[in-house]
Amino acid sequence: MNDTLRIKLQLFCADERALGPGRADVLEAIERVGSISGAGRALGMSYRYTWLLVDGMNRCFEGRVVETATGGAGRGGARLTDTGRAVLAAYRALEEDLRRASEGEALAALRALLRPEPLPRG
Amino acid sequence: MNDTLRIKLQLFCADERALGPGRADVLEAIERVGSISGAGRALGMSYRYTWLLVDGMNRCFEGRVVETATGGAGRGGARLTDTGRAVLAAYRALEEDLRRASEGEALAALRALLRPEPLPRG
Repeated sequence: MNDTLRIKLQLFCADERALGPGRADVLEAIERVGSISGAGRALGMSYRYTWLLVDGMNRCFEGRVVETATGGAGRGGARLTDTGRAVLAAYRALEEDLRRASEGEALAALRALLRPEPLPRG
Repeated sequence: MNDTLRIKLQLFCADERALGPGRADVLEAIERVGSISGAGRALGMSYRYTWLLVDGMNRCFEGRVVETATGGAGRGGARLTDTGRAVLAAYRALEEDLRRASEGEALAALRALLRPEPLPRG
Protein backbone atom coordinates (compact mmCIF):
# COMPACT_ATOMS: atom_id res chain seq x y z
CA MET A 1 0.00 0.00 0.00
CA ASN A 2 1.59 3.27 -1.02
CA ASP A 3 -1.17 5.58 0.08
CA THR A 4 -0.93 8.92 1.85
CA LEU A 5 -3.21 7.79 4.66
CA ARG A 6 -3.28 4.49 6.51
CA ILE A 7 -6.17 3.80 8.84
CA LYS A 8 -5.53 1.12 11.44
CA LEU A 9 -8.50 -0.17 13.43
CA GLN A 10 -7.96 -2.12 16.64
CA LEU A 11 -10.74 -3.69 18.64
CA PHE A 12 -10.16 -4.40 22.31
CA CYS A 13 -11.78 -6.83 24.70
CA ALA A 14 -11.03 -5.18 28.05
CA ASP A 15 -7.23 -4.71 27.83
CA GLU A 16 -6.64 -7.49 25.29
CA ARG A 17 -6.38 -6.95 21.55
CA ALA A 18 -9.30 -8.71 19.96
CA LEU A 19 -8.94 -7.76 16.29
CA GLY A 20 -6.75 -5.58 14.09
CA PRO A 21 -5.22 -5.66 10.60
CA GLY A 22 -3.01 -8.69 11.34
CA ARG A 23 -5.73 -10.79 12.97
CA ALA A 24 -8.18 -9.91 10.18
CA ASP A 25 -5.60 -11.12 7.66
CA VAL A 26 -5.31 -14.38 9.62
CA LEU A 27 -9.08 -14.93 9.45
CA GLU A 28 -9.03 -14.25 5.73
CA ALA A 29 -6.11 -16.63 5.17
CA ILE A 30 -7.79 -19.41 7.18
CA GLU A 31 -10.92 -18.97 5.07
CA ARG A 32 -8.78 -19.24 1.95
CA VAL A 33 -6.36 -22.06 2.79
CA GLY A 34 -8.37 -24.05 5.34
CA SER A 35 -5.82 -24.46 8.13
CA ILE A 36 -4.05 -22.43 10.81
CA SER A 37 -0.61 -23.68 9.76
CA GLY A 38 -1.31 -22.89 6.10
CA ALA A 39 -2.59 -19.42 7.01
CA GLY A 40 0.58 -18.76 9.02
CA ARG A 41 2.77 -19.92 6.12
CA ALA A 42 0.84 -17.71 3.69
CA LEU A 43 1.43 -14.72 5.97
CA GLY A 44 5.04 -15.56 6.82
CA MET A 45 4.25 -16.20 10.49
CA SER A 46 5.14 -19.16 12.71
CA TYR A 47 2.48 -21.72 13.52
CA ARG A 48 2.76 -20.87 17.20
CA TYR A 49 2.27 -17.13 16.67
CA THR A 50 -0.65 -17.69 14.28
CA TRP A 51 -2.24 -20.09 16.75
CA LEU A 52 -1.86 -17.55 19.58
CA LEU A 53 -3.67 -14.92 17.49
CA VAL A 54 -6.49 -17.35 16.73
CA ASP A 55 -6.72 -18.42 20.37
CA GLY A 56 -6.91 -14.77 21.45
CA MET A 57 -9.74 -14.07 19.00
CA ASN A 58 -11.56 -17.21 20.13
CA ARG A 59 -11.39 -16.00 23.74
CA CYS A 60 -12.51 -12.43 22.91
CA PHE A 61 -15.64 -13.11 20.86
CA GLU A 62 -18.88 -14.76 21.94
CA GLY A 63 -18.54 -18.17 20.38
CA ARG A 64 -15.30 -19.11 18.62
CA VAL A 65 -14.32 -17.38 15.39
CA VAL A 66 -12.30 -20.37 14.16
CA GLU A 67 -13.06 -24.05 14.61
CA THR A 68 -10.52 -26.79 14.04
CA ALA A 69 -11.18 -30.28 12.71
CA THR A 70 -9.86 -31.87 15.90
CA GLY A 71 -11.59 -29.30 18.07
CA GLY A 72 -8.29 -28.43 19.69
CA ALA A 73 -4.94 -26.96 18.79
CA GLY A 74 -4.06 -29.72 16.32
CA ARG A 75 -2.60 -29.02 12.90
CA GLY A 76 -5.63 -30.39 11.10
CA GLY A 77 -8.02 -28.31 9.07
CA ALA A 78 -9.58 -25.10 10.38
CA ARG A 79 -12.34 -22.86 9.17
CA LEU A 80 -14.25 -19.77 10.21
CA THR A 81 -17.44 -20.18 12.18
CA ASP A 82 -20.49 -18.09 11.35
CA THR A 83 -19.29 -15.72 14.08
CA GLY A 84 -15.85 -15.59 12.47
CA ARG A 85 -17.32 -14.72 9.09
CA ALA A 86 -19.56 -12.06 10.64
CA VAL A 87 -16.63 -10.55 12.56
CA LEU A 88 -14.41 -10.43 9.49
CA ALA A 89 -17.14 -8.95 7.30
CA ALA A 90 -17.99 -6.26 9.86
CA TYR A 91 -14.30 -5.37 10.32
CA ARG A 92 -13.78 -4.96 6.55
CA ALA A 93 -17.02 -2.96 6.30
CA LEU A 94 -15.85 -0.66 9.10
CA GLU A 95 -12.50 -0.15 7.35
CA GLU A 96 -14.34 0.71 4.16
CA ASP A 97 -16.73 3.10 5.97
CA LEU A 98 -13.80 4.98 7.50
CA ARG A 99 -11.84 5.01 4.26
CA ARG A 100 -14.82 6.70 2.62
CA ALA A 101 -15.37 9.06 5.57
CA SER A 102 -11.72 10.12 5.48
CA GLU A 103 -12.09 11.75 2.06
CA GLY A 104 -13.15 15.15 3.31
CA GLU A 105 -11.81 18.61 4.08
CA ALA A 106 -9.40 17.60 6.82
CA LEU A 107 -7.55 15.06 4.69
CA ALA A 108 -7.54 17.44 1.73
CA ALA A 109 -5.93 20.09 3.96
CA LEU A 110 -3.26 17.62 5.10
CA ARG A 111 -2.54 16.42 1.57
CA ALA A 112 -2.19 20.01 0.38
CA LEU A 113 0.55 20.54 2.98
CA LEU A 114 2.39 17.23 2.44
CA ARG A 115 5.38 17.16 0.11
CA PRO A 116 5.37 14.42 -2.55
CA GLU A 117 8.82 13.36 -1.20
CA PRO A 118 10.49 14.24 2.09
CA LEU A 119 13.43 16.65 1.95
CA PRO A 120 16.76 14.88 2.48
CA ARG A 121 18.07 14.54 6.06
CA GLY A 122 20.52 17.01 7.59
CA MET B 1 -8.25 5.23 26.73
CA ASN B 2 -10.20 2.10 27.56
CA ASP B 3 -12.40 2.05 24.51
CA THR B 4 -13.51 -0.89 22.40
CA LEU B 5 -12.18 0.69 19.22
CA ARG B 6 -8.90 2.49 18.61
CA ILE B 7 -8.44 4.33 15.34
CA LYS B 8 -4.85 5.05 14.38
CA LEU B 9 -4.21 7.42 11.49
CA GLN B 10 -0.82 7.54 9.81
CA LEU B 11 0.11 9.96 7.07
CA PHE B 12 2.94 9.07 4.73
CA CYS B 13 5.20 11.21 2.59
CA ALA B 14 6.33 8.68 -0.03
CA ASP B 15 7.63 5.84 2.20
CA GLU B 16 8.37 8.00 5.24
CA ARG B 17 5.98 8.44 8.16
CA ALA B 18 4.93 12.07 8.19
CA LEU B 19 2.36 12.14 10.99
CA GLY B 20 0.65 9.77 13.39
CA PRO B 21 -0.58 9.69 16.99
CA GLY B 22 2.92 10.08 18.48
CA ARG B 23 4.01 12.94 16.23
CA ALA B 24 0.70 14.73 16.75
CA ASP B 25 1.27 14.47 20.52
CA VAL B 26 4.75 15.97 20.02
CA LEU B 27 3.28 18.96 18.15
CA GLU B 28 0.72 19.45 20.89
CA ALA B 29 3.35 19.25 23.61
CA ILE B 30 5.62 21.75 21.83
CA GLU B 31 2.69 24.14 21.56
CA ARG B 32 2.07 23.70 25.30
CA VAL B 33 5.58 23.76 26.76
CA GLY B 34 7.46 25.81 24.15
CA SER B 35 10.50 23.60 23.55
CA ILE B 36 11.47 20.31 21.94
CA SER B 37 13.31 19.10 25.05
CA GLY B 38 10.36 20.02 27.29
CA ALA B 39 7.94 18.28 24.94
CA GLY B 40 10.10 15.15 25.02
CA ARG B 41 10.23 15.21 28.83
CA ALA B 42 6.45 15.66 29.02
CA LEU B 43 6.00 12.60 26.80
CA GLY B 44 8.73 10.49 28.43
CA MET B 45 10.89 10.51 25.29
CA SER B 46 14.57 11.32 24.84
CA TYR B 47 15.57 14.67 23.38
CA ARG B 48 17.20 12.90 20.45
CA TYR B 49 14.12 10.84 19.59
CA THR B 50 11.80 13.84 19.93
CA TRP B 51 14.11 15.90 17.73
CA LEU B 52 14.15 13.16 15.08
CA LEU B 53 10.35 13.14 14.97
CA VAL B 54 10.27 16.92 14.60
CA ASP B 55 12.96 16.83 11.91
CA GLY B 56 11.00 14.19 10.01
CA MET B 57 7.83 16.27 10.10
CA ASN B 58 9.77 19.37 9.02
CA ARG B 59 11.08 17.46 6.00
CA CYS B 60 7.67 16.00 5.05
CA PHE B 61 5.51 19.13 5.04
CA GLU B 62 5.74 22.16 2.78
CA GLY B 63 7.35 24.70 5.10
CA ARG B 64 8.48 23.62 8.56
CA VAL B 65 5.91 22.61 11.17
CA VAL B 66 8.17 23.61 14.09
CA GLU B 67 10.58 26.54 14.28
CA THR B 68 13.30 26.83 16.89
CA ALA B 69 14.61 30.03 18.46
CA THR B 70 18.11 29.36 17.15
CA GLY B 71 16.81 28.16 13.80
CA GLY B 72 18.67 24.87 14.25
CA ALA B 73 18.70 21.85 16.48
CA GLY B 74 19.57 23.83 19.64
CA ARG B 75 17.80 23.26 22.91
CA GLY B 76 16.33 26.76 22.93
CA GLY B 77 12.63 27.50 22.57
CA ALA B 78 10.50 26.02 19.82
CA ARG B 79 7.01 26.68 18.59
CA LEU B 80 4.62 25.59 15.89
CA THR B 81 4.56 27.53 12.65
CA ASP B 82 1.25 28.39 11.00
CA THR B 83 1.73 25.24 8.93
CA GLY B 84 2.32 23.23 12.11
CA ARG B 85 -0.87 24.52 13.67
CA ALA B 86 -2.83 23.82 10.48
CA VAL B 87 -1.41 20.28 10.26
CA LEU B 88 -2.22 19.51 13.90
CA ALA B 89 -5.74 20.93 13.65
CA ALA B 90 -6.50 18.99 10.45
CA TYR B 91 -5.14 15.75 11.96
CA ARG B 92 -7.30 16.12 15.08
CA ALA B 93 -10.31 17.02 12.91
CA LEU B 94 -9.75 13.90 10.79
CA GLU B 95 -9.52 11.74 13.93
CA GLU B 96 -12.78 13.25 15.14
CA ASP B 97 -14.49 12.77 11.74
CA LEU B 98 -13.53 9.09 11.70
CA ARG B 99 -14.48 8.58 15.32
CA ARG B 100 -17.94 9.88 14.47
CA ALA B 101 -18.14 7.87 11.24
CA SER B 102 -17.21 4.68 13.12
CA GLU B 103 -20.44 4.72 15.13
CA GLY B 104 -22.54 2.78 12.65
CA GLU B 105 -23.82 -0.69 11.90
CA ALA B 106 -20.46 -2.37 11.40
CA LEU B 107 -19.09 -1.32 14.79
CA ALA B 108 -22.40 -2.17 16.47
CA ALA B 109 -22.19 -5.67 14.96
CA LEU B 110 -18.61 -6.11 16.23
CA ARG B 111 -19.48 -4.83 19.71
CA ALA B 112 -22.42 -7.21 19.87
CA LEU B 113 -20.05 -10.14 19.27
CA LEU B 114 -17.27 -9.00 21.61
CA ARG B 115 -17.16 -10.37 25.15
CA PRO B 116 -16.81 -7.79 27.92
CA GLU B 117 -13.74 -9.74 29.13
CA PRO B 118 -11.68 -12.37 27.29
CA LEU B 119 -12.06 -15.96 28.43
CA PRO B 120 -9.03 -17.19 30.38
CA ARG B 121 -6.17 -18.81 28.43
CA GLY B 122 -5.86 -22.56 28.00
